Amino acid sequence: MEARGVPLLLISHLVNIRYLTGFAGSAGMVLVSPRKGLLWVDPRYTLQAREQADGVEVIEEKKGILKSAALWLRQNAARDCAFEASYLTCTQFELLRKEAGEAVHLRPAGDLIEELRIVKDRDEIAAIRRAGVVTAEVFAEILPLIRPGVAERELAAEIDYRMRKRGAEGPAFETIVASGVRSAYPHARASAKALQESELVIFDLGAILAGYAADMTRTVYLGEPNRRVRRLYTAVLKAQEGAVWSVQAPSPAGKIDATARRILAQYRLARHFTHSTGHGVGLEIHERPRLGKGESTRLQAGSVVTVEPGVYLEGFGGIRIEDTILVGPAGPENLTPASKDNWVIC
Amino acid sequence: MEARGVPLLLISHLVNIRYLTGFAGSAGMVLVSPRKGLLWVDPRYTLQAREQADGVEVIEEKKGILKSAALWLRQNAARDCAFEASYLTCTQFELLRKEAGEAVHLRPAGDLIEELRIVKDRDEIAAIRRAGVVTAEVFAEILPLIRPGVAERELAAEIDYRMRKRGAEGPAFETIVASGVRSAYPHARASAKALQESELVIFDLGAILAGYAADMTRTVYLGEPNRRVRRLYTAVLKAQEGAVWSVQAPSPAGKIDATARRILAQYRLARHFTHSTGHGVGLEIHERPRLGKGESTRLQAGSVVTVEPGVYLEGFGGIRIEDTILVGPAGPENLTPASKDNWVIC
Repeated sequence: MEARGVPLLLISHLVNIRYLTGFAGSAGMVLVSPRKGLLWVDPRYTLQAREQADGVEVIEEKKGILKSAALWLRQNAARDCAFEASYLTCTQFELLRKEAGEAVHLRPAGDLIEELRIVKDRDEIAAIRRAGVVTAEVFAEILPLIRPGVAERELAAEIDYRMRKRGAEGPAFETIVASGVRSAYPHARASAKALQESELVIFDLGAILAGYAADMTRTVYLGEPNRRVRRLYTAVLKAQEGAVWSVQAPSPAGKIDATARRILAQYRLARHFTHSTGHGVGLEIHERPRLGKGESTRLQAGSVVTVEPGVYLEGFGGIRIEDTILVGPAGPENLTPASKDNWVIC
Repeated sequence: MEARGVPLLLISHLVNIRYLTGFAGSAGMVLVSPRKGLLWVDPRYTLQAREQADGVEVIEEKKGILKSAALWLRQNAARDCAFEASYLTCTQFELLRKEAGEAVHLRPAGDLIEELRIVKDRDEIAAIRRAGVVTAEVFAEILPLIRPGVAERELAAEIDYRMRKRGAEGPAFETIVASGVRSAYPHARASAKALQESELVIFDLGAILAGYAADMTRTVYLGEPNRRVRRLYTAVLKAQEGAVWSVQAPSPAGKIDATARRILAQYRLARHFTHSTGHGVGLEIHERPRLGKGESTRLQAGSVVTVEPGVYLEGFGGIRIEDTILVGPAGPENLTPASKDNWVIC
C-alpha cells in the first residue's frame, strides 16, 4: 500500500476479505490502514468473524456495514481512501460518498489484492492440492457410471455428491457434463439429455476445499472411436501436454497459449480452439494470470493455473482436456492427477 | 417505462435479463427502448440467446458487451438512458460513460424490473410449485437418514443429490444442516460435525427448477424431547402457522411479521426471534416483498413469500420452521407441503 501511495484501503469483495482476514461469511467490509485492520459485520456474523478473522478488529454493526465504515472515515478525518471500483456498485459508491463526506478523496484501488493473490503460499497450495486430488478421485469413481442411457444431469449430480462425500465443500462451479453435439459448446450446462452410443462426452469439474478450487476437464468416447475421433483426441492431448510442459516461470503467460495453438495447428485444428488456454485458480475459479493470446505477464513460481485447450466442431462434438497446474520452482506439477488414457468406454 | 419517463433502460443484472427475455446465460446486456429490445452476448452464448430470448434482437459481440451497448447509445444519439445502479459497478459505469459519450444523460433506474417481479404469472407460480414439491419430497426422503453419528455435511450432500435426481437444477442456496448448539446460528453452514442424541437439528433447503426457487425449513429433535424443547417447538409452530394464515392480500407485509412476533411473545420468546419473518422468492432466493417489522408495502395476489419465524438460544440450540407461501386470491397456499409433525426422531 505504501509503495502505491494508498494510505487507506476499503475492501468490499468478499473473496479479498477472506484472503486478507480469513473471515468467510457472506457479508463484511474491511478497512486497512498502515496501523490496523477493521472488519465490519452484521450480528449474524459477529461470532464467526471473531473466530476466523486474524489481526483485525471486529466491529458488529446492525444498521449497514458500508455506512458504518463510511462514518468511520468521516469521524477519523480520513483524507484519502482507495476502494475496489470493480466490485463496489454505483449505489454503494453513492452511499459511501454521502456518509464519508466530501472531505475524503475516494479513488479506485486498482487490483492490489488480486495481484497479491497471484502467488500462493504453502497453505494455499496444500488446499488446492487436496481439492485437485478429490476432483481426480471423483472422476475415477464415476467412470464406471458413464454409459448410454444415463442423463448428463444425473452424472453431474453423482459428481457433486461424491465430492462432498470426500470432504469437499462442494463443486467450485456448476459441473459440466455435455454429450454428443452438445459437447461442441464450451459452456454447455448438464442437461436432461441421455448419453448415447458413439458420442463424445465432456466432463468439466472441480472441488472446493477450505475455500480453494481445483479445475479439471476430461473427455470420453462411448463406443469404438473411428479414425477421425482418435485423431481429434490425440491432437488435443498433445496440445495439452505440450502446453503443460511450457508452464515454466518466468515465461510470459502468452507462451503457454501459443504452444497449445501451435500443436493444434499441426493438425489443422487451430481455428476450432475458440477460447483461451487457461487461467489462474485459487479462492476464485477464474483468477490471474490469464493464459491468453499475447499475454506478456510472466509466470511466477507459486502460481496455480489451468491448461485447457479444446476443439469444438459444430454439429459433431468437442474435446477438451484440462488440468490444474502448479508453477513449481523446478517446473510444472499436475494437481489434478486423473488418467487421460481411459477415454474409450466400450 | 413511459409512466416513469424512462426512454431507454440498460439492464445488466442477469436475473432481470432472464426475467425479461428468457436468456439464461452467464453474461449479457440488454437495452430496452419503447420500440424494441436488444441483447448483447459474447460468441459463447449466441446460439443459446437466439434459442431462449424472445422478442429481442440478439447481437453477438466479441470485444465487450457493455462497451458495445454504450457505443450503440452514442451512435443512436441517445439523450437519456436509465441504468441499474444497484448492479453496475463503478468500473462498469466509467466504461459506459466513456464509450457512450457526454451527450447522453445516464441516471439510476430505481427498481423498475424488481417491482415487476413481485407479482408472478401462471408459469412462474407453476415453476415455484414444482420446486416446492421437490423440496418437500426430498426432505421426506432424507428423514430416515437423520440419526446420531451422521455428519451435517453428509445430510446436506444427500439433500442436494436427491433434488437433482428429482429433476431440479440443484439447490437454490447452500443447504443448511445445523445441529446442537450450532442450530442457534441462523446462518450456520453444514459442517463436518456429527449429529448427536438429544440435539435439535435445523434443515433449511430449497430446490431450483426452471430457474425458480423454493425455500423451506424444518427442525427435528433426536431423542425424546423434554418439556422445554416441546414448548419451544410448539411456540415456533404456532407462530409460523399463525403468520401463514395472515398472508392475505392486501395486508401490509409488516402484519405477517407482527403476527409471528405476537404469538412468540405469548411464550415470552419474542426476543429470541432475531431476524425478519420472510421474503419474496422467485428467480432469486431473496426478492421483494420483505416481511419485516413495520413494512407497509401491501401484499398482492400472485406474490410468493416465505414465512419463517425462529427462536435461537445461544449455547442451547434453535428452532425455525419455514414454508414458501403463495398469496392466493382466496388466501395463502403452502407450496412446500412437508410435514411439521414428524419432528421427534427416536
